[in-house]
Amino acid sequence: MEFTIKQIAAMLGGVVKGDTSAKINMLAKIQEAKPGQIAFLSNPKYEHFIYETKASAVIVKKDFIPKKPISSSLIMVDDPYSSFTVLLEEYHKMISFQKEGIEEPCFIGDNSTIGKSIYRGAFSYIGNNVKIGDNVKVYPHTYIGDNVVVGNNTILHPNVKLYAGTVVGSNCIIHSGTVLGSDGFGFAPQEDGTYKTIPQLGNVILEDNVTIGANTVIDCATLSGDSTIVRSGVKLDNLIQVAHNVEIGKNTVIAAQTGISGSTKIGENCVFAGQVGIAGHLVIANRTSVGAQAGIPKSIKEEGQKLIGYPVLDVKEYFRSYALFKQLPDISTRLRQLEQKLVAGQSAVKSD
Amino acid sequence: MEFTIKQIAAMLGGVVKGDTSAKINMLAKIQEAKPGQIAFLSNPKYEHFIYETKASAVIVKKDFIPKKPISSSLIMVDDPYSSFTVLLEEYHKMISFQKEGIEEPCFIGDNSTIGKSIYRGAFSYIGNNVKIGDNVKVYPHTYIGDNVVVGNNTILHPNVKLYAGTVVGSNCIIHSGTVLGSDGFGFAPQEDGTYKTIPQLGNVILEDNVTIGANTVIDCATLSGDSTIVRSGVKLDNLIQVAHNVEIGKNTVIAAQTGISGSTKIGENCVFAGQVGIAGHLVIANRTSVGAQAGIPKSIKEEGQKLIGYPVLDVKEYFRSYALFKQLPDISTRLRQLEQKLVAGQSAVKSD
Amino acid sequence: MEFTIKQIAAMLGGVVKGDTSAKINMLAKIQEAKPGQIAFLSNPKYEHFIYETKASAVIVKKDFIPKKPISSSLIMVDDPYSSFTVLLEEYHKMISFQKEGIEEPCFIGDNSTIGKSIYRGAFSYIGNNVKIGDNVKVYPHTYIGDNVVVGNNTILHPNVKLYAGTVVGSNCIIHSGTVLGSDGFGFAPQEDGTYKTIPQLGNVILEDNVTIGANTVIDCATLSGDSTIVRSGVKLDNLIQVAHNVEIGKNTVIAAQTGISGSTKIGENCVFAGQVGIAGHLVIANRTSVGAQAGIPKSIKEEGQKLIGYPVLDVKEYFRSYALFKQLPDISTRLRQLEQKLVAGQSAVKSD
Repeated sequence: MEFTIKQIAAMLGGVVKGDTSAKINMLAKIQEAKPGQIAFLSNPKYEHFIYETKASAVIVKKDFIPKKPISSSLIMVDDPYSSFTVLLEEYHKMISFQKEGIEEPCFIGDNSTIGKSIYRGAFSYIGNNVKIGDNVKVYPHTYIGDNVVVGNNTILHPNVKLYAGTVVGSNCIIHSGTVLGSDGFGFAPQEDGTYKTIPQLGNVILEDNVTIGANTVIDCATLSGDSTIVRSGVKLDNLIQVAHNVEIGKNTVIAAQTGISGSTKIGENCVFAGQVGIAGHLVIANRTSVGAQAGIPKSIKEEGQKLIGYPVLDVKEYFRSYALFKQLPDISTRLRQLEQKLVAGQSAVKSD
Repeated sequence: MEFTIKQIAAMLGGVVKGDTSAKINMLAKIQEAKPGQIAFLSNPKYEHFIYETKASAVIVKKDFIPKKPISSSLIMVDDPYSSFTVLLEEYHKMISFQKEGIEEPCFIGDNSTIGKSIYRGAFSYIGNNVKIGDNVKVYPHTYIGDNVVVGNNTILHPNVKLYAGTVVGSNCIIHSGTVLGSDGFGFAPQEDGTYKTIPQLGNVILEDNVTIGANTVIDCATLSGDSTIVRSGVKLDNLIQVAHNVEIGKNTVIAAQTGISGSTKIGENCVFAGQVGIAGHLVIANRTSVGAQAGIPKSIKEEGQKLIGYPVLDVKEYFRSYALFKQLPDISTRLRQLEQKLVAGQSAVKSD
Repeated sequence: MEFTIKQIAAMLGGVVKGDTSAKINMLAKIQEAKPGQIAFLSNPKYEHFIYETKASAVIVKKDFIPKKPISSSLIMVDDPYSSFTVLLEEYHKMISFQKEGIEEPCFIGDNSTIGKSIYRGAFSYIGNNVKIGDNVKVYPHTYIGDNVVVGNNTILHPNVKLYAGTVVGSNCIIHSGTVLGSDGFGFAPQEDGTYKTIPQLGNVILEDNVTIGANTVIDCATLSGDSTIVRSGVKLDNLIQVAHNVEIGKNTVIAAQTGISGSTKIGENCVFAGQVGIAGHLVIANRTSVGAQAGIPKSIKEEGQKLIGYPVLDVKEYFRSYALFKQLPDISTRLRQLEQKLVAGQSAVKSD
């Protein structure tokens, strides 16, 4: 990107104080910004940075009054943080949608339709009866099975695998090696100890604005007509396991290596740290926050709790108990001493 | 699939009571079945469902005598559950083996032989001296290294990676992104703190009827002639780590994100939940059942135990201790009170 | 490999005692070696094996004096273990660099340069402005994005994914399905509960002699000019998560399924077992050793500690507390008995 400060101010509906012609080519934190970069000041706590920053421009509140001279141009707006995130997203789009056209060889099956401004990398595979929207980027080695639907402006990085029947919304980003729609883990035990494979006939649905990291797996639902569903705005990190028939509520964020077992329903706006394990057939309330490596064996009914541990406890409760876990040798010793004293005491009483 | 009730009854060696000509195109649970679907009734506890079900046909025991009118046709057999799983598997095969023929471009090296009714997807790679059986499905982007052997009726989903020398049995299913035969994690420490790579010369062997989920990794054995072995009927989920020289016994089932360290031997008919960690060089007895996120640092000698926790304990024992872990603050307080009372008590005794 | 004992002795700068013409084609442990194989004896504790071994040659210390007859030829060197690891590495190279030439179809973009003796497998993808050194092996389905640099003698197994801008040193080995340079997990929360994507503009740098297993993910750094860095000699296993802006110090070894959160700096010569979780923005001291499934929520300042548990404790401390965790039911019972006795005792005292 390269824009003048004037152009950026126009984009944000802001007013410039200072030089309007300087070129901006990057976003940065106010304390780290260099010339040619733009930063923002929202929290008054960080005001001192604005008097030292090397940023060519800083986005500030429209009622901001400097207490000292500032070398940067100021762009005055209603909400600096929100304006800055608008720029972040614009910049993200600009660098993400550069690829366009078709590299050969690539494969497309029968009756598939693709939109405008698409990128189809070499060795990408599109099956039969696929529908792909406008401005979609299909990087090399990506596989799109039969009957898949992909919405506008979605980016499929190299080597994404969409099994037949998967539905991906608009403005989604899926990173390398991620698999959507593999078979749920379902087997019917037989009397002789073997298992028969239960056909997995459902699919995976991603709504709009979903981002998924690398090498994550989401299994399809078991029954035909059913779906494993990832709701709008969900952000999943790398190496996550999402089993069959799971539903993840809007705007929930899940960090790397977490696993969600079959048929569990995760609420909206939840935050899961890394390596969390969640059992099957649970319901997790909205705004639940779960610490790293926690284990969730039961449904969480109350909204907005902060949990940790295996099985999960309230964060404070867990750390109080864990502090005492470390003191168990001391507790055990004191208990033994008490027992001895009491025996001695009782003898003393008796001998009195 | 679409069969008449008569055809299905013939397949199962059963006798029909009711309409034999209705078409069946799907399997379902008795309480969820719709017209055109077939269900089964095995457990007498669920008998009430048969009087309400919309299923076109229900598989029942041959001595079943209805207490009320039933709208479905009945297929009378010796063992309804077992007959139903036969249908499940038949249906699974039907939907899994639809692809056939060769899509271009795809690659095949020298001296490789492939069987009948094979599917070779675009961009699939078959190296030199490979032997592939009949009815094998090699989906797009799948890599089959030199000297690999694949048995009949095996499905390699898009982007499976079989390193040189891997052996895969018949009727296996391997999902996207799974890697068989990558190097074991072996390095020889040097005096200067660096490591030299120990060549990994063994292979991976999958026996028949093995199913593996997506993005799982199985390393090859260290020495030439040795193998990491997955025995017949084993079912592995997604994102599992199986290190060099591991052996997994017949019909063992392992859920997602579990890791097995080098040279460990897992028994037959074990069940491991997700995110379990198993140390190296262990022997785990047959029919061991292990709860989610457990850690196994030592061999398990007694068969058929149910274990949980880190390090693993018997399930009941673990939860009893964990209940008290939560009460540690209370235990600690009571201990302090006792100590104070005892001091007070002893003073009291002394002052008596 | 097939060399005479004489050739191997020359390679190691050693002196032969015995037959020099026998052919060697494999390395083995002294207790398992067969004719045609070479082993070593370093630790005097294992000296008895040398009188029984079937190895055609054994590497021994130059001052070694046999106490009984030995059927193997001896190669006398300064440091047998170190000589043996030299052979291991040579052998590893020999079997790893067999592939050469170009298989079609494969893809290469504009302005990219590749060195001598390269292997480019079918369906491999090399983008624009890429620089690849000599003797590099790019296996089938591997993706090398724009502006990537790969040093000499590096092996990229099938389906490695290097995002644009990644830098890989010399003598590195990367296994199938591993992704370098995917977006860091960064999102700016908005007032309406949604998140905006923060552009991830940095890259991943691997120094020389780094080995990475299969299906591991290393995210790029957030800011342009910044890097997620894996220092020289690091060995990473399978299915590991390395978040944005992490730095892993020289010669550190990390086992499978471990996860490192954003901006954490791991010291040199550390050893992490499998399934460990490490929080973000930490500094882990050199030579830290961490047991399987441990959780590290705080920086580790003292070098050379052995830690385990969640949160991590010193290994001995952890196991002492865990032993008492198992005894909590007993501790609880004894506490209750004491309380009862004390009440009884006090009554006794009072009634005295």
